[in-house]
Amino acid sequence: MQPTSLSEIIGAIRPVDPDRLRAAQDHLDNLTKPRRSLGVLEEIAARMAALSREARPAVRAPRIFVFVGDHGAVEEGVSAYPPEVTTLMVHNFLAGGAAINVLARRAGAEVRVVDVGMRDRVDVPGLIGRNVRRGAGNIARGPAMSLEEAEQALMAGTEMAMQADSEGSTLIGLGEMGIGNTTSSAALYAALLPCVPREIVGKGTGLDAAGVERKIETVTRALAVNRERLTDPLSALAAVGGLEIAAIAGCCLGAAARGLPVVVDGFISGAGALTAMRMAPAVRDYLFFSHVSAEAGHRLYFAREGLRPMLDLDMRLGEGTGAAIGMQIITDAVAIYNEMATFADVGIEPGA
Amino acid sequence: MQPTSLSEIIGAIRPVDPDRLRAAQDHLDNLTKPRRSLGVLEEIAARMAALSREARPAVRAPRIFVFVGDHGAVEEGVSAYPPEVTTLMVHNFLAGGAAINVLARRAGAEVRVVDVGMRDRVDVPGLIGRNVRRGAGNIARGPAMSLEEAEQALMAGTEMAMQADSEGSTLIGLGEMGIGNTTSSAALYAALLPCVPREIVGKGTGLDAAGVERKIETVTRALAVNRERLTDPLSALAAVGGLEIAAIAGCCLGAAARGLPVVVDGFISGAGALTAMRMAPAVRDYLFFSHVSAEAGHRLYFAREGLRPMLDLDMRLGEGTGAAIGMQIITDAVAIYNEMATFADVGIEPGA
Repeated sequence: MQPTSLSEIIGAIRPVDPDRLRAAQDHLDNLTKPRRSLGVLEEIAARMAALSREARPAVRAPRIFVFVGDHGAVEEGVSAYPPEVTTLMVHNFLAGGAAINVLARRAGAEVRVVDVGMRDRVDVPGLIGRNVRRGAGNIARGPAMSLEEAEQALMAGTEMAMQADSEGSTLIGLGEMGIGNTTSSAALYAALLPCVPREIVGKGTGLDAAGVERKIETVTRALAVNRERLTDPLSALAAVGGLEIAAIAGCCLGAAARGLPVVVDGFISGAGALTAMRMAPAVRDYLFFSHVSAEAGHRLYFAREGLRPMLDLDMRLGEGTGAAIGMQIITDAVAIYNEMATFADVGIEPGA
Repeated sequence: MQPTSLSEIIGAIRPVDPDRLRAAQDHLDNLTKPRRSLGVLEEIAARMAALSREARPAVRAPRIFVFVGDHGAVEEGVSAYPPEVTTLMVHNFLAGGAAINVLARRAGAEVRVVDVGMRDRVDVPGLIGRNVRRGAGNIARGPAMSLEEAEQALMAGTEMAMQADSEGSTLIGLGEMGIGNTTSSAALYAALLPCVPREIVGKGTGLDAAGVERKIETVTRALAVNRERLTDPLSALAAVGGLEIAAIAGCCLGAAARGLPVVVDGFISGAGALTAMRMAPAVRDYLFFSHVSAEAGHRLYFAREGLRPMLDLDMRLGEGTGAAIGMQIITDAVAIYNEMATFADVGIEPGA
């Protein structure tokens, strides 16, 4: 299937097969350990096995996408860093010196950096150009983008997922870069969970208390100004989201349509994943949430959606850094599934 | 330093140097990420750097010890598995089919299996023979072992740590195998935290509610029968512990005396680590606690000691499986420390 229309992609998403999930857990129950004694690792292994097109799950050619976009709302003083940092960090990603490069190497994953909404025109080898517009609009004064632009950014993410699948990747990780994007994410959570701004807004890359108040006020204004646009997930994404958040949502949808599991990073990737789950609830079966961020409100998200992230390490960097560690845990779980001896092999009664 | 006497080893343990810790955090603050935005990974990296004998921390030749011992208390019906399983699992470890083998491979770590207290005489290539006695006594009826035996088992662990250090390992992981050993561990926690049995006893490898009540009753009797022996950490270890738990405590002490960091596994390894911390509080600076186990009471331990484990994955297998995943997280943290670009490299102002 080639990325054609969003509705076709959504129509292609199927929930995980409960029979395959049960068969996978039966296999795990025959391995030389007390039943379910590997806890979350077994849940991960079972889902990876049930989603695999092959007899056994495998993590092959894992790929982490860093979707990049800028945000007009930085004018409101909602970030500890100036917008230029987005571009400087893109250079850092492509030179291999950022945290995501280090952790992706550890996970054996390739990093792909995709410009979907950078303000600056950057000509640097390796940057994948899918720029839809030069930065999202200031959501405190109007919509982040038009519906058409949101759909274009979604489709850029979908294209990346499908290309990864076609090129043999069996696991995708999602990350992002964009100064100001915890503000857009908070607005999107507020619209889609829903919740009030104060519950979801945090200090981002390092705001002080006054900065957090300013950010709450900005999100509150964004929701008021865009009120009539918050009618459905796609419209909400266009109104208060960001281009990189749209691409993340699209990547979740595209991966799920192809049957490919996805590791979600932190607060911002989570907003994209939430948008995708609101557009197509079955997407959830394909998502592995790597960590709960130190960003206030991320915990609320997991509680409200009944999700359990793998890690709680007070991380709040983004880029896909949590996803890269999550990929290692998933690879551990898959190794358990594939490599352990069975009770029959060693002559022990399975027991409890 | 060769392992000579326990008091010499304890005397050689120094707390981490606060100046080196500060210098390590300064280095982390110069890397291209908001300050402290990698949360627990940065704390791990800073401590690994401060403990390293070299300019930069390194995880080289990591080694996981699985200390093995049996427990007379299984007579009381406190385990879901018969004691024979200890021996069968030792064969499984040495054949490479157990969960610890799979996860140690993922961590790039070698597994060493050490008999310190097995009931059965097992002649299988690769098993390191340091048997002190053929299983601990039934703690519900008397002491687990004599003081001399406890000290011998401790010294076996110390020897392993020092040998690993001499052979170039820069990170040790601790695991164990011994049917019945959550009972001894619970008794040891009750004596050393201290707490009441009901707060710390859990279902182990899979007891039902009646089994858990029987186990609480067994621990309560063990504490009563051995009451006069619970005067100090070493005596408590001998009275209600186990030989593998003693070896774990000794391994912590030996590693700390050599300046080597240690990754602690779950509930049982935690009991050994607690014993070591009670014998020499500075040991704490050398310990990385990998995960909070699904075993009831483990959370209490961390809360009471003010410790934060890296992972919370509902694991309750032991063997060192949590430690093997923890080693991967530590290796991630060390890679961040060593491989990231600095702000000066990329021309960004450090910011908040």
